[in-house]
Amino acid sequence: MRTVDIQPDRVRLIDQRRLPGELVILDCTDYHQVGEAIRTLAVRGAPAIGVAAAGGLALAAAALRDSPPDAFWAGLEAAAAELRATRPTAVNLFWAIEKVMDFARGQKGEPPAAVAAALHRFAVEMAEEDVAVNRRMAEHGAALVPERAGILTHCNTGALATVDWGTALGVIRLAHEQGKQVHVYVDETRPVLQGARLTAWECLQYGIPATLITDNMAAHMMRLGKIQLVFVGADRIAANGDTANKIGTYGVAVLAREHGIPFYVVAPTSTVDLRIRSGDEIEIEERAHEEVTHIGGVRIAPEGIAVANPAFDVTPARYITGIVTERGIAYPPYTVSLRRLMQGG
Amino acid sequence: MRTVDIQPDRVRLIDQRRLPGELVILDCTDYHQVGEAIRTLAVRGAPAIGVAAAGGLALAAAALRDSPPDAFWAGLEAAAAELRATRPTAVNLFWAIEKVMDFARGQKGEPPAAVAAALHRFAVEMAEEDVAVNRRMAEHGAALVPERAGILTHCNTGALATVDWGTALGVIRLAHEQGKQVHVYVDETRPVLQGARLTAWECLQYGIPATLITDNMAAHMMRLGKIQLVFVGADRIAANGDTANKIGTYGVAVLAREHGIPFYVVAPTSTVDLRIRSGDEIEIEERAHEEVTHIGGVRIAPEGIAVANPAFDVTPARYITGIVTERGIAYPPYTVSLRRLMQGG
Repeated sequence: MRTVDIQPDRVRLIDQRRLPGELVILDCTDYHQVGEAIRTLAVRGAPAIGVAAAGGLALAAAALRDSPPDAFWAGLEAAAAELRATRPTAVNLFWAIEKVMDFARGQKGEPPAAVAAALHRFAVEMAEEDVAVNRRMAEHGAALVPERAGILTHCNTGALATVDWGTALGVIRLAHEQGKQVHVYVDETRPVLQGARLTAWECLQYGIPATLITDNMAAHMMRLGKIQLVFVGADRIAANGDTANKIGTYGVAVLAREHGIPFYVVAPTSTVDLRIRSGDEIEIEERAHEEVTHIGGVRIAPEGIAVANPAFDVTPARYITGIVTERGIAYPPYTVSLRRLMQGG
Repeated sequence: MRTVDIQPDRVRLIDQRRLPGELVILDCTDYHQVGEAIRTLAVRGAPAIGVAAAGGLALAAAALRDSPPDAFWAGLEAAAAELRATRPTAVNLFWAIEKVMDFARGQKGEPPAAVAAALHRFAVEMAEEDVAVNRRMAEHGAALVPERAGILTHCNTGALATVDWGTALGVIRLAHEQGKQVHVYVDETRPVLQGARLTAWECLQYGIPATLITDNMAAHMMRLGKIQLVFVGADRIAANGDTANKIGTYGVAVLAREHGIPFYVVAPTSTVDLRIRSGDEIEIEERAHEEVTHIGGVRIAPEGIAVANPAFDVTPARYITGIVTERGIAYPPYTVSLRRLMQGG
């Protein structure tokens, strides 16, 4: 079962709100449901939400396939706008929607039913391409992993964050399969606990030795010498290499540098946004405060306390040892290396 | 109501496992119950557990007051040993037990009933002294707080961590009462959530403006310029200034230095352990893994995942701007300044 499975009449998603308690499949039969799944984190992870949105657009086109062309195109644009508005930070969402819409607009003269059929095939190909891209990133990244490395990771960047295989966790998974005897330290990743719920679950599925820690234990583990490498994912990478990723990533990066530990970002080139010069231009999503004040429906903080809940932070490029993409690894200065990688594609 | 209230026939404690949901008083009528309350975190915070243990010894003495001297002294030593074994890291526990036992042993010739009565008075005086010490620390510490400071704190170091008033949060509380318009950023402090449950609750009680954050948001808030100062407590301070405190403190210290933010430890001199040269000699308590895998009885991590749960970490002295005690503020080099403060007492 893939995390995102695009079928002609539905987008099937693993409902990540229910893991690790239950493995439940969510069938989205229209694009509104896909949008809601993205907004509520039933599907999350930058690559996964991009492909899910592509699937949502294909569903929108399929529902309109018997409409007159004007209604078809207006409806498709409305679907794109609605899906674009679900989450603001991860650029893969916008990238995927633009890629689908560019492809669609290239067929403006075709009958809606033909465009709809083509969009379905296109979205399926994007899903396949995501898996292939992840495998190539894993090959590049696994070469960085020494024998018997303790590896810290944050949030979930595995198969559940993508169509399949994963980004940062995909690197670790391949290193494990290569017999490198890695040990993963899994940040639980408050507030939504993607590490405790999803990464820990994936590590158990793959048989990768792993230890779950609370986010605030990472520094202690580094000081004890248990961590030799950090791999994290990304939601958006600016032209200068500044990287937005799950809240807490920036702190890990500072701690890694203080301990002389290499800190790598693993993300497909679809995460690189050359239109923005630095991380200062990245909008940071503020999510519902209940994510902080409640866990599993249980209130943990007193009523009336003010809360901050930025879902992401920005790690300045100077803390990043390298950025692993499917086209190779970018090293500083990123303004040069990222542009070169993007042009080479 | 004080956090620890020593009465002739019981030690009354605010049950901190129940906050912020309910304010429940726990009546311990024998020293075993006091030990259990310390072990299970019904009472926690280095100064509070020290005084609670003193109260437990007074209860042990009271229960034995009609015993022959040999049985009285053997029972009292057994109680001291049992209370000493409840938690390994905070030195205030050992300090308080030794202080009570030294006082008791000084009266070896007296009848048990007289010793028991004297021990009760002694424990009550220790409780009073704790409050007075906290007030003196607050005066020293509040002088460090500028107008309109954003202050990060970790764990709970308020009235609930002491008999009353608090250490690090006591400093913040006094600065607030002095009209300094502070704003507190409260680390939730996983896994036991002393920040979210207790510090947030105390800030609401005192009307101190406060924002609850997850631990992994601290770096982001520092980068945004929202934090000008860090105040934390301590469970043990070595002769060289290395400080054991709640897990996560070390990470905060590294982040503070990276952002040029002063990082102060606030702790009574009873927390300073001149018998150990450095933090390497401090035993770090490893607590039950369910504290990490479950929150409020709800399982958040998959069954079978390995877990680390060190309750404390050690912040090397080089990250600490100053150590605020009731006798004044120690600055580097701590090997000199701490010894001088301790001798001056």
